[in-house]
Amino acid sequence: MNLKELDLKYIWHPCTQMSDHEFLPLIPIKKAKGVYLYDFDEKSYIDCISSWWVNIFGHCNEYINEKIKDQLQNLEHVILAGFSHEPIIKLSQRLCKLLPFDKCFFADNGSSAIEVALKMSFQYHLNNGSKKDKFLSLSNSYHGETLGALSVGDVALYKKTYEPLLLKSITTPVPTSKDYTKELEILESILKNHHHEICAFILEPLLQCAGNMHMYELGYLNEAVKLAKSYGAQVVFDEIATGFGRTGEMFALDYCSQSIDYICLSKAITGGYLPLSVVLTKDEIYEKFYDSYESQKAFLHSHSYTGNALACAAANATLDIFEKENIIAKNKIKSAFIKTQWESLKEFDFLGNFRNLGMVSAFDIQKSKYQRAGLEVFQRALEKGLLLRPLGNTIYFMPPYVINEDEIAYVVESLREIFKDF
Amino acid sequence: MNLKELDLKYIWHPCTQMSDHEFLPLIPIKKAKGVYLYDFDEKSYIDCISSWWVNIFGHCNEYINEKIKDQLQNLEHVILAGFSHEPIIKLSQRLCKLLPFDKCFFADNGSSAIEVALKMSFQYHLNNGSKKDKFLSLSNSYHGETLGALSVGDVALYKKTYEPLLLKSITTPVPTSKDYTKELEILESILKNHHHEICAFILEPLLQCAGNMHMYELGYLNEAVKLAKSYGAQVVFDEIATGFGRTGEMFALDYCSQSIDYICLSKAITGGYLPLSVVLTKDEIYEKFYDSYESQKAFLHSHSYTGNALACAAANATLDIFEKENIIAKNKIKSAFIKTQWESLKEFDFLGNFRNLGMVSAFDIQKSKYQRAGLEVFQRALEKGLLLRPLGNTIYFMPPYVINEDEIAYVVESLREIFKDF
Repeated sequence: MNLKELDLKYIWHPCTQMSDHEFLPLIPIKKAKGVYLYDFDEKSYIDCISSWWVNIFGHCNEYINEKIKDQLQNLEHVILAGFSHEPIIKLSQRLCKLLPFDKCFFADNGSSAIEVALKMSFQYHLNNGSKKDKFLSLSNSYHGETLGALSVGDVALYKKTYEPLLLKSITTPVPTSKDYTKELEILESILKNHHHEICAFILEPLLQCAGNMHMYELGYLNEAVKLAKSYGAQVVFDEIATGFGRTGEMFALDYCSQSIDYICLSKAITGGYLPLSVVLTKDEIYEKFYDSYESQKAFLHSHSYTGNALACAAANATLDIFEKENIIAKNKIKSAFIKTQWESLKEFDFLGNFRNLGMVSAFDIQKSKYQRAGLEVFQRALEKGLLLRPLGNTIYFMPPYVINEDEIAYVVESLREIFKDF
Repeated sequence: MNLKELDLKYIWHPCTQMSDHEFLPLIPIKKAKGVYLYDFDEKSYIDCISSWWVNIFGHCNEYINEKIKDQLQNLEHVILAGFSHEPIIKLSQRLCKLLPFDKCFFADNGSSAIEVALKMSFQYHLNNGSKKDKFLSLSNSYHGETLGALSVGDVALYKKTYEPLLLKSITTPVPTSKDYTKELEILESILKNHHHEICAFILEPLLQCAGNMHMYELGYLNEAVKLAKSYGAQVVFDEIATGFGRTGEMFALDYCSQSIDYICLSKAITGGYLPLSVVLTKDEIYEKFYDSYESQKAFLHSHSYTGNALACAAANATLDIFEKENIIAKNKIKSAFIKTQWESLKEFDFLGNFRNLGMVSAFDIQKSKYQRAGLEVFQRALEKGLLLRPLGNTIYFMPPYVINEDEIAYVVESLREIFKDF
């Protein structure tokens, strides 16, 4: 059997109706470099979605590679309870300098970081003497797929089947236009009626990635956070996808004028190399858990690989690159170039809702003869050497930051050819 | 500030009442090799608990290091939806040859693997036309700390605080002696009354690690699995801690005469290097999800780093070592040596409930003048250069398999000295 056959014999792929692979290619990748993935026939693909939004400095980045190799010589992993290591101490210090937070609590994947934030907020109120057990989140949100994380999400595709297993949570509508008066009114009315039971308001700031790359107004974000806090709800920003430069600033929080309680980070934190996630919070929250052992106020949550040294080394290398190469400033130029290129596709009248934020661009296929138009684009893009993976009929471009202007132009030109023939 | 001060300033450690570090050391580790961890004063510690039960072939193992370095040259990570890579295909094929399963579904940490198994079992019944939404698990069990995984656990320390956020699940008593008649009766009565709503029976076979290293009879395991299946419940083995040789065989399932539906693996799968987890299941289950896209029967669960290539390379290297060095056979000799050594501590009449299974040994401190006797042992063991991390008053020894007889003897002799002075 060849690799593809072996794959389909033994692997059940994530987020996939496996019967699709009766007609859809399943592509084993042999090697990768920069923005390019290479299959076993030496065909190359530009990774236009950063391999699920994780890769920012290219595949097999030499600097990150070297730092992981160095770390392998010293320490691959040690238990993080009672013990520690230099890469995680450095990383925590750096994150607390980049962000208005004081303490880092680590986990492995994004979902687990969300679970940490939910449990921590619940227990914060409990340690503070008040029993609240509901979470408030935005419509169209996605926060991961473990049951707790799934409970505060709203994308039916991932959630509907599992409803009977989920926590009941409260959803408030995300704005869908520049006028968010109505959405703020609904939020206020929910808070007025439910503030006694709401632990926290959790949201993806400015950009709901899995929710078809929906972008919403900063004005709403600022007002909504202010409102939630005025009603005693803590605020959690899920920046798992938006963090580390994706929205144009280092974090979407950098755009926000309000102070929040928790931020969840993962994905690009290791440059796209290894699973690592972290929840940052403030000392005033930490202190509500800091008591005698007997008080039973400790936050008890752990994963075996929490704070993995190799992943922390990759994360420190990633932060090094941001600093040394002035990435955020450079991305502003690149982002403007992408926007201009992207908007040239407005020539097709069946494409609409063009949107850009930092290093994310999207539009929707609004009319098509194809039942699964996004899938049609996926297949045709593969033929042109592009890994694009639409969300339904939303086509988005979320490349590693190392992509250059020629490559960007090639991606847009390829899309133009695809749509000319659509 | 020194590293320890920086650590305590920026890091909130897992599974820790942070105020304990007012008197308890927090030890940054500089490097590690084999069973030894070295701090920044060059003091060494034998890692008697395999850094939370993950490390099996020693820290900074040269063979695993080389395989990760090789992988870094080719591919660090690629999205696993629609794409794949050789290390994960090989790994999946090898796991399906080692175990009586057909398909591998990957995730990052143990908790996430449990969430996958719960969601998959729930949806299996749904796709099969029956609505069941409860899970059955053993008393004293631990399956992780995301909300779904925590719901099927029973260790109060981790669970009690978060009860209002958890799924209601059903618990059946784990046997506590060689006679398990009563436990089987209770199980049967639960199944009789609740079989219409029970998706699956989830259990840690033979050994409940976080449940104070409680060991129970194989006879119960076989009968309980048989009973559950006869009432239409699927069976999930959580071998996150027990897998990869820990119980003496490659998997605890190897001892079991019954067939099961899902096995969850993590921890030692990468030799203790990187977070990776997998749920294995059978084609007859996979086929219940295999349908047209429109049927909405697909299993939609994903984590960005699912099937990470570096972690899979570490996992393949780990399986190589098992094969090439005939580890399971060698461990049987080592395990017998540990048992003899361990039982020499029976000389202390305040120690009891001595138990061994494969590469796990434990006893309980049954009387002590210390309020937190386990913590007292932890501190004194550190002084003697041992990382032992008791579970309450249970002292256990769960070393990397590369530990040698001299090192084992040193651990036991150190414990003897500690207890002489207790």
